[in-house]
Amino acid sequence: MPTAKPALIIGSVAIDRVATPFAQSDKILGGAATYASIAASYFAPTRLVGIVGRDFPAAYRRRYLKHKIDLAGLQTDPEGKTFYWSGRYKEHFAGRDTLEIQLNVFEKFSPDLPAHYRDTPYVMLGAIQPSLQNHVIDQLATKRKPFILADTFDLWIHTTKPELDRLLQRIDCFVINEEESLLLTGERNPVLAGRHLRRMGPRIVVIKKGGHGSLLFHADGYFAISAYPVTKFVDPTGAGDSYAGAMIGYLASVNRTDFSALKQAVAYATAVSSLTVESFSVDRLSNAGRKTIDARYRELQKITRF
Amino acid sequence: MPTAKPALIIGSVAIDRVATPFAQSDKILGGAATYASIAASYFAPTRLVGIVGRDFPAAYRRRYLKHKIDLAGLQTDPEGKTFYWSGRYKEHFAGRDTLEIQLNVFEKFSPDLPAHYRDTPYVMLGAIQPSLQNHVIDQLATKRKPFILADTFDLWIHTTKPELDRLLQRIDCFVINEEESLLLTGERNPVLAGRHLRRMGPRIVVIKKGGHGSLLFHADGYFAISAYPVTKFVDPTGAGDSYAGAMIGYLASVNRTDFSALKQAVAYATAVSSLTVESFSVDRLSNAGRKTIDARYRELQKITRF
Repeated sequence: MPTAKPALIIGSVAIDRVATPFAQSDKILGGAATYASIAASYFAPTRLVGIVGRDFPAAYRRRYLKHKIDLAGLQTDPEGKTFYWSGRYKEHFAGRDTLEIQLNVFEKFSPDLPAHYRDTPYVMLGAIQPSLQNHVIDQLATKRKPFILADTFDLWIHTTKPELDRLLQRIDCFVINEEESLLLTGERNPVLAGRHLRRMGPRIVVIKKGGHGSLLFHADGYFAISAYPVTKFVDPTGAGDSYAGAMIGYLASVNRTDFSALKQAVAYATAVSSLTVESFSVDRLSNAGRKTIDARYRELQKITRF
Repeated sequence: MPTAKPALIIGSVAIDRVATPFAQSDKILGGAATYASIAASYFAPTRLVGIVGRDFPAAYRRRYLKHKIDLAGLQTDPEGKTFYWSGRYKEHFAGRDTLEIQLNVFEKFSPDLPAHYRDTPYVMLGAIQPSLQNHVIDQLATKRKPFILADTFDLWIHTTKPELDRLLQRIDCFVINEEESLLLTGERNPVLAGRHLRRMGPRIVVIKKGGHGSLLFHADGYFAISAYPVTKFVDPTGAGDSYAGAMIGYLASVNRTDFSALKQAVAYATAVSSLTVESFSVDRLSNAGRKTIDARYRELQKITRF
């Protein structure tokens, strides 16, 4: 087992309020960087970049610290309040509506890296504006090129496509869901969409299909993994962020990004995100422990082998 | 390699005319028993039960004979015409509309088994009326209980549910698609739907998810397989029938129905049905050859292993 390299996670930190067809949450800890950093922390020392307001509860901060997440990059703006999002999932989780959104301190967020973050070798750019994702890359040490994984969001495909196109030239791995891959490539067939996305820049592409598993595209081949068979489905919020966070954390932990390591990263990502959906917020993800994750990884191997 | 046991296929034989968003077929050979028997014939000696009319082209009959399919059970009614179906797939293959249906000789079809068919150890009941499926089971030799796999169709779930319920008590393996499993169980989560279906009778359940792969439920465990990465998608007609036919053919060929053999059968079914969708009718399926099927089976192993 090699010594794990550190992983850097940039993204939103939020206070959420989520309604599903079956339940309603209180105000809870959310945001892409939250889910991703806790997921990554199971594998590698994790550094967080984000912004919160004066109202950010100490208990939420303790949640990160429980996972030994480096919070040097978590800015606190005493002038404002934390990014707030309230949403409601439609029947059968077929999409969701935003009920209320208050960008608050997130509106003027500029992800500036503390000095000791700049040479982090494994970096995940959560789905913030592509211009901010590019701004982070500008700050990274260039002596040893880091491995950069990025996520995006349909809004950026609609509104800042040129900036997103530029980002795609600068990253190693692009993680995207099936609907976004259609939006970006016009390809309904995910196999063709994955190939198309690789031609847009990133040498590695992952297309997530929710309950139908995910697909990995790499110069050395194609890999398809089924979903973990979740039967207690509570809230999908953060599943994609946990997925990407687990990927970058696992790659940092083995300090490899070859096809074989990437397949294992995708399998760990599948295991980790299956935990996220079993509760509101990061409760299940944070409490599950590495043993549960490893057990799900092994179960995924078992249920897909013939 | 054990000597393959014979497989028996019961179902519709049809003349189809299919429109997709991209192409329009001529009149072509179709029907569940056609797809299933050709698929099964790659693995085991295959016996067909069906009915055609006086208009059934000799070239179609030769197609079965090319695959050494036993046609003793293919009734020809000189008084009528072959079952005819014409349909059009909607944009993005999101469902299909029937444009014309002429049951013709199929209306009075009674699947009567020739004497030498009655002790066939591996039987697939295509999605004809459950009363006819039950009628076939009544004719099977009871000394050595055969292995029975059945398919169904949403119409029978709506119209002849009690007869379908009776059938489920009498079969070993039920192969169904995701929408039908929801209709029959009320369960949207396919893992819960599969467990529910097993409680309805069959000890083995397979849920097919089209381009998202399929799931196998068995007392010894759960198995999930991704779809073969098809990039030349022409026409989905017959994919499910080929899937079930390949399953029964493979099980007959190894003369085993344990969990391990079933996983392999599901993988072969995935490989075979990926060929069916690459052309109209059985053209690609019939011309592909066993080597291509074996290559796709090995590729499925390769692209799903980590």
